[in-house]
Amino acid sequence: MKQRCQDKADRRRKESHIDNQPNNHYFDCNTKMKKENRSVGLVAPKDFSFAEPPNKFQLESGKKLGPINIRYETYGTLNDGRSNAILLLHAFSGDAHAAGYLSETDKTPGWWDAMVGPGKAFDTDRYFLICSNIIGGCRGSTGPSSINPQTGKPYALSFPLITINDMVRTQNELLNHLGISELFAVAGGSMGGMQALEWSIYYPEKVRSAIILASNARMTAQGIAFNALSRNAIMSDFRWQDGNYYGKEIPSRGLAIARMAGHITYLSDEAMHKKFGRRLQGREKYGYDFSDEFEVESYLQYQGDKFVERFDANSYIYISKAMDYFDLGARFGGLNEAFAETRAKFLVVSFSSDWLYPSYQSKEIVFALSKNRKDVSYIEINCPYGHDSFLLETDRQSTIISSFLGGIRG
Amino acid sequence: MKQRCQDKADRRRKESHIDNQPNNHYFDCNTKMKKENRSVGLVAPKDFSFAEPPNKFQLESGKKLGPINIRYETYGTLNDGRSNAILLLHAFSGDAHAAGYLSETDKTPGWWDAMVGPGKAFDTDRYFLICSNIIGGCRGSTGPSSINPQTGKPYALSFPLITINDMVRTQNELLNHLGISELFAVAGGSMGGMQALEWSIYYPEKVRSAIILASNARMTAQGIAFNALSRNAIMSDFRWQDGNYYGKEIPSRGLAIARMAGHITYLSDEAMHKKFGRRLQGREKYGYDFSDEFEVESYLQYQGDKFVERFDANSYIYISKAMDYFDLGARFGGLNEAFAETRAKFLVVSFSSDWLYPSYQSKEIVFALSKNRKDVSYIEINCPYGHDSFLLETDRQSTIISSFLGGIRG
Repeated sequence: MKQRCQDKADRRRKESHIDNQPNNHYFDCNTKMKKENRSVGLVAPKDFSFAEPPNKFQLESGKKLGPINIRYETYGTLNDGRSNAILLLHAFSGDAHAAGYLSETDKTPGWWDAMVGPGKAFDTDRYFLICSNIIGGCRGSTGPSSINPQTGKPYALSFPLITINDMVRTQNELLNHLGISELFAVAGGSMGGMQALEWSIYYPEKVRSAIILASNARMTAQGIAFNALSRNAIMSDFRWQDGNYYGKEIPSRGLAIARMAGHITYLSDEAMHKKFGRRLQGREKYGYDFSDEFEVESYLQYQGDKFVERFDANSYIYISKAMDYFDLGARFGGLNEAFAETRAKFLVVSFSSDWLYPSYQSKEIVFALSKNRKDVSYIEINCPYGHDSFLLETDRQSTIISSFLGGIRG
Repeated sequence: MKQRCQDKADRRRKESHIDNQPNNHYFDCNTKMKKENRSVGLVAPKDFSFAEPPNKFQLESGKKLGPINIRYETYGTLNDGRSNAILLLHAFSGDAHAAGYLSETDKTPGWWDAMVGPGKAFDTDRYFLICSNIIGGCRGSTGPSSINPQTGKPYALSFPLITINDMVRTQNELLNHLGISELFAVAGGSMGGMQALEWSIYYPEKVRSAIILASNARMTAQGIAFNALSRNAIMSDFRWQDGNYYGKEIPSRGLAIARMAGHITYLSDEAMHKKFGRRLQGREKYGYDFSDEFEVESYLQYQGDKFVERFDANSYIYISKAMDYFDLGARFGGLNEAFAETRAKFLVVSFSSDWLYPSYQSKEIVFALSKNRKDVSYIEINCPYGHDSFLLETDRQSTIISSFLGGIRG
């Protein structure tokens, strides 16, 4: 199992490193295999707008925002009883495109394609899956890069700060729009897990099960420190211009450096050693210069530069701040108290090499649920890939999630 | 013991956080206690220059450099047999000022003052201690901010890249100048440990004992990644100007961000939790803005800004690169082979919570020495402060080092 996990992950990593190369063999195969390969096939993003002024949406901060657009995708079919809906919650830099392909020529499937499709962990033959881009994001939902209709210009820093609770309450508006009053499950990894936890507590009557992967109940000082580092990198880029860079040069270096810091935390010491070691990039001897001569440097630079093409720097600082604010127990006087009213069955999964959201943080959630005599399953998966394991190690997660969902009464 | 270690470290941290406040009570006491408190008292830095053109010094890269100045300090007295000299080797941002005070009004002792003085671990009543600033540095020894006599301008990026081996061979020039042909011990933590290892291998006949604290035999991919992140932060600051910022605005934001990344790696998740938790800085509620509202953010910002006042950005990129190049076994075909000719007794110390130079890296050194049937003692100290433990946890280290040095034949 370990070796398989390794091979598969190596392959996926390779893909992610070369995903701008359209003639890559793997993706050619993959495109051909789209339908055979249990893919949801072609998908179309949809939009839902609400909170038209004067009926703006009240945020946790007290500020109001509207109109709000939510970009979302759905996979599978809502049953007649409207009881098979699962809400998938994306992580920091994710989006609504969780599975399938956006066009016939699209070579890269959605971010959780390995887990979402016919016969997969989130089985589209059984469940109706919904995934929406978070508020504050830059992938279709309203965020700091959106046009403020009142000014005709991007919000930039006039966009109000948002929280995990705001993400969840705006997702609830979408579910109301879709006529879904109860969720078979909420599921997410990392920041997606934070949203799943918030769902289970804020809407206890609506959530029948919650799947929390590589996540935590509150951002730690170390987590805040890394986010602060990244925000500083962005806000110190002279092109950032207090957030008013739209239509001009973007703070590409700052954002790339923020992403580099992110990637260091997503991997582990062991994963980096296995993936790169001390190998040099395209040379055999030290060059005694300041080029990116080690493979790991080249990898980080590539990831940073690639990220800049698809992500908005202001969204980065807003979303990272929402994570920093996340402290599930705070408004209840403790984590035990926070879970008192939950009705969901919980599945909590952590990964042995994840040092950004280490297992002890998942165990805190499990202990708090247990103290409340709630139904909770916990598993720590041995996997060397660090925090990224929740996206890379899909074999064992699939088995665990399928089994867990199979045990939820329909 | 653990509680004492904790209290002492908390106190030291507090000091370091407020060391720009001249009226601070602690330092008033400390100044008064200078002589009672086993301090080496007032010390004076010295300079040694060599490699006057045309007799330039050949670096490991093949490039030549000269003249070279080495700033150093000494404590204690060299005995008649010239056999009691110990070379102290500083870490990344350290300098030649390891102990004592530079003036009567100086309130901050040298960086290893807790360990160096009469009756202390490095006992100035018994040993003659030498500490010099590394080549490439910015604290008195020749580095990229030094004036190139050939141009009359700072070297900037025309300074050649340096390695740990270059640091050691220039230190050897200093020892020749001082008439010391054998060292009772070499000792250092972190990058200082790398130099101590290099000493034991490059000059096996000169080193009778080596003390390696919180260090490793080669920089890991994760370590290179963090250094690359920091170099990118500096080199992306528009004020960096390809290194030609001397006499102009310095790349202060880039350097501060690099230091912030450093401080995250010097602490541990646990240490950060204990020190800051999720406490807010000077407010009781979230401000829903992008100020440094968490204590940990304020701490990092403070450390970053303070560092800029005393450290040169180009030295940062040169020294970090020297660490990245460090791979002790590489030129011998393996770590076991590297230690074959060493004659020193070794003391290797690691710290349980150090994730930048984790214990397994110290154990690699210990195993390689053991395979060579070399005399090596190893201890892992349980301490929650991460990599910084080697500077903060001085009680147990003092006992261990005193005992180790006591066992070396004089």
